[in-house]
Amino acid sequence: MYLLLAFRAMRTFIVVGHKAITTPNFSLEDIPGTSGRLDILCRAVTAAFVLSHGIRKDVCVYLILLGGEVPKTIRLVGETLRHLNPDERTTAALLKKALAVPATPLWAMSTSGIFVRTGGLEQLLADLKDARLIYLREDGADIRNLDEGLDACSLSGEAAFILGDHTGMTPEEECLIEQAGAKVVSLGSTSLHADHCIVLINWLLDNKPFATVC
Amino acid sequence: MYLLLAFRAMRTFIVVGHKAITTPNFSLEDIPGTSGRLDILCRAVTAAFVLSHGIRKDVCVYLILLGGEVPKTIRLVGETLRHLNPDERTTAALLKKALAVPATPLWAMSTSGIFVRTGGLEQLLADLKDARLIYLREDGADIRNLDEGLDACSLSGEAAFILGDHTGMTPEEECLIEQAGAKVVSLGSTSLHADHCIVLINWLLDNKPFATVC
Repeated sequence: MYLLLAFRAMRTFIVVGHKAITTPNFSLEDIPGTSGRLDILCRAVTAAFVLSHGIRKDVCVYLILLGGEVPKTIRLVGETLRHLNPDERTTAALLKKALAVPATPLWAMSTSGIFVRTGGLEQLLADLKDARLIYLREDGADIRNLDEGLDACSLSGEAAFILGDHTGMTPEEECLIEQAGAKVVSLGSTSLHADHCIVLINWLLDNKPFATVC
Repeated sequence: MYLLLAFRAMRTFIVVGHKAITTPNFSLEDIPGTSGRLDILCRAVTAAFVLSHGIRKDVCVYLILLGGEVPKTIRLVGETLRHLNPDERTTAALLKKALAVPATPLWAMSTSGIFVRTGGLEQLLADLKDARLIYLREDGADIRNLDEGLDACSLSGEAAFILGDHTGMTPEEECLIEQAGAKVVSLGSTSLHADHCIVLINWLLDNKPFATVC
């Protein structure tokens, strides 16, 4: 049991919020209308971490917030994450606290397991240069055929999954992601919300018969 | 195109909220703490209906609310559903409106596509006696092996998926579900929230290579 746990690979999710606010000046009574759709990122956090009776310890989430003058990135680490409940408002309150922390280019802790810094996608991709990057896009290779068409290792080991919000990626971001060597993978032709994609990725990794451990 | 649409089978999700409030007397500022965890049902509704840019028209959701003196059931019908946004608070506000409608054993409309009546699981299962019932439980048959171990038709046609909330089903409910002839099916050994199960079911039905149309 201990051996299995020791070898369980981290799962990283990167979600880009193109209009997401970078200050705590939004209302918990109207998250979608006052925060640049931070609600999308809240639901992505829940999807990434929350199990029926617990938190996934082996998950790390990066939220890239681009709706302010200076981009900010919030990092949530399952191993030490506290106070996360399944409801949207609680998650938004945790992010609000993180956005109240004076941010610099170095990570600063907000609450347990939640960190914030200035910087956006380019800096994060540079930090994750050793991770296997998977970019989720409707026209990518079918994720269920990875063992046939792509390297099966892509879904094991230290994989980092990149997802957009409701506005999609910009051409500049597409270029950055391509240059970083990300594989473009699809969950099907139906366009899904980021949090639903994360639920599916977690499930596929929990139950993978196709991605043999490399 | 019209032919395809005409033959697209309805998907029905039934979610039992054992402590869910049956009156509108809860706070949108603290949904989990004041409504008997109606937040769980709100997220189930979002998972069932919401696509990246639209609503699934072929979905019907029944929420069974058991936290009051008299059970109530709320029905949401994708074909005519209006005003549903992806955020939890908006969904809770729609359910609050439905719970303010005087309920009788006959369906009464609240807002477009949302109906309410008194009655619980037993009445609903009697109404759905012609549907193929699938009960989601961790120890059921693996959903990915349905074409081997179970009738593949179970996942096509007019299937109705039954899910519990955070408290699980009572022995009486288990008995009702069994007597109704439901197949017990599992999404894996990891215990997931009801909304995440619904995301997975929708995806499996969207992309099913295993459940051939009967």
